[in-house]
Amino acid sequence: MRLRGRKGIRENLEQQQHLVILDPREYKGRWAELFGNDRPIHIELGMGKGQFISGMSVKYPDVNFIGMDMYDELIRRASEKVRGIWQEQGQEKPQSVRLALGNIESIEEFFAPNEVERIYLNFSDPWPKKKHGRRRLTHPRFLEKYRTLLNENGEIHFKTDSRELFQFSLNAFAACGLQMSNISLDLHREGINEEHVMTEYETKFVNQGVNIHRCEVIVGEAALSRYHEHKMEQF
Amino acid sequence: MRLRGRKGIRENLEQQQHLVILDPREYKGRWAELFGNDRPIHIELGMGKGQFISGMSVKYPDVNFIGMDMYDELIRRASEKVRGIWQEQGQEKPQSVRLALGNIESIEEFFAPNEVERIYLNFSDPWPKKKHGRRRLTHPRFLEKYRTLLNENGEIHFKTDSRELFQFSLNAFAACGLQMSNISLDLHREGINEEHVMTEYETKFVNQGVNIHRCEVIVGEAALSRYHEHKMEQF
Repeated sequence: MRLRGRKGIRENLEQQQHLVILDPREYKGRWAELFGNDRPIHIELGMGKGQFISGMSVKYPDVNFIGMDMYDELIRRASEKVRGIWQEQGQEKPQSVRLALGNIESIEEFFAPNEVERIYLNFSDPWPKKKHGRRRLTHPRFLEKYRTLLNENGEIHFKTDSRELFQFSLNAFAACGLQMSNISLDLHREGINEEHVMTEYETKFVNQGVNIHRCEVIVGEAALSRYHEHKMEQF
Repeated sequence: MRLRGRKGIRENLEQQQHLVILDPREYKGRWAELFGNDRPIHIELGMGKGQFISGMSVKYPDVNFIGMDMYDELIRRASEKVRGIWQEQGQEKPQSVRLALGNIESIEEFFAPNEVERIYLNFSDPWPKKKHGRRRLTHPRFLEKYRTLLNENGEIHFKTDSRELFQFSLNAFAACGLQMSNISLDLHREGINEEHVMTEYETKFVNQGVNIHRCEVIVGEAALSRYHEHKMEQF
């Protein structure tokens, strides 16, 4: 892998204004305007190298995707992946996906209330030390932010290989009174994952036989109504 | 192990009226009368050979314990264990524990509404085939029965080695809108188990390094108030 200096990376990102958003604060409340349509907005918080967001964006063309990360080198790598996968599809420019540089600590500065329909948390940093618990992206202080951003169809889709982070997260969802659904303790044995798009980590872990844990959290009122209507069908 | 004929077992149980309840229907709504006091009643559904209920009964003398099982041979073996452990404590007769023969399918015939303060489900049969899902003791049809029996302090404490049963149960608790708490995916590493009384299965599994999963379900209104008052302290 060729390593570029920070300056080189930043210049590279600045040349990709169609795909890369260097200051997502500018678009708070105006993402629909940026995309040029009112399709639902799904965001991935901590997208890493972009395998998931790029795969999702070509699989679900009727959804606007925003991948976020705080490291510009990851934004650069993800941008290559997105452009590559869209070119394979014969599309010159990725239309329905953006990659945004930003720290999720400030997520309420990037999105307006009700602006987001789905949040993906994939293999978030488990921050294993107890004193770092507040940094975990499923800590109640983050869940309260997410609740505000999500619209009436809002859901959080969370997957991780970390049993410790999953346990922490289930207790956090429970403590915040959030409705959990489709809890899986061994995703690839159960086959619940209807999305079929794997992250880089996931591909590696599944090949190693590591368990993937997954859970959906139903937040929006319309999404809750649908859940309650069908929830007993699983039993 | 010496095997007795069914007739021999039944005669043995009939001679233990102080400890063994052959027809729990007789005591529906009258368990406090049977125990001679108003202490909380904790029941274990599917107690097996009785290691947990006997250990709990000497550890928590201010609680009335009822161990239930549908097999008379298990009631007999549990009765020996209870008598043995109480004798070790220098007590001639077990005062605060009863062993009841009955099928949990009919639990509403054994207990009146609000008569029970805690239900223990320890290593319940996972019934791994999907078509047998209704038999799992955490199926929503059982959870609705438990909800009725539990009083204002009511809780369900559930532990299992079966990842499949645990996953099923988390989804069932969620679908029934029940408040989960202290979810653990690896009980003996986390050290959450404040009770420190292990079942026969648990002793075996822990020695084998098998994960134990555990969850509390808070049902009663007073128990819920206490949970909500303290729930954020864990983060």
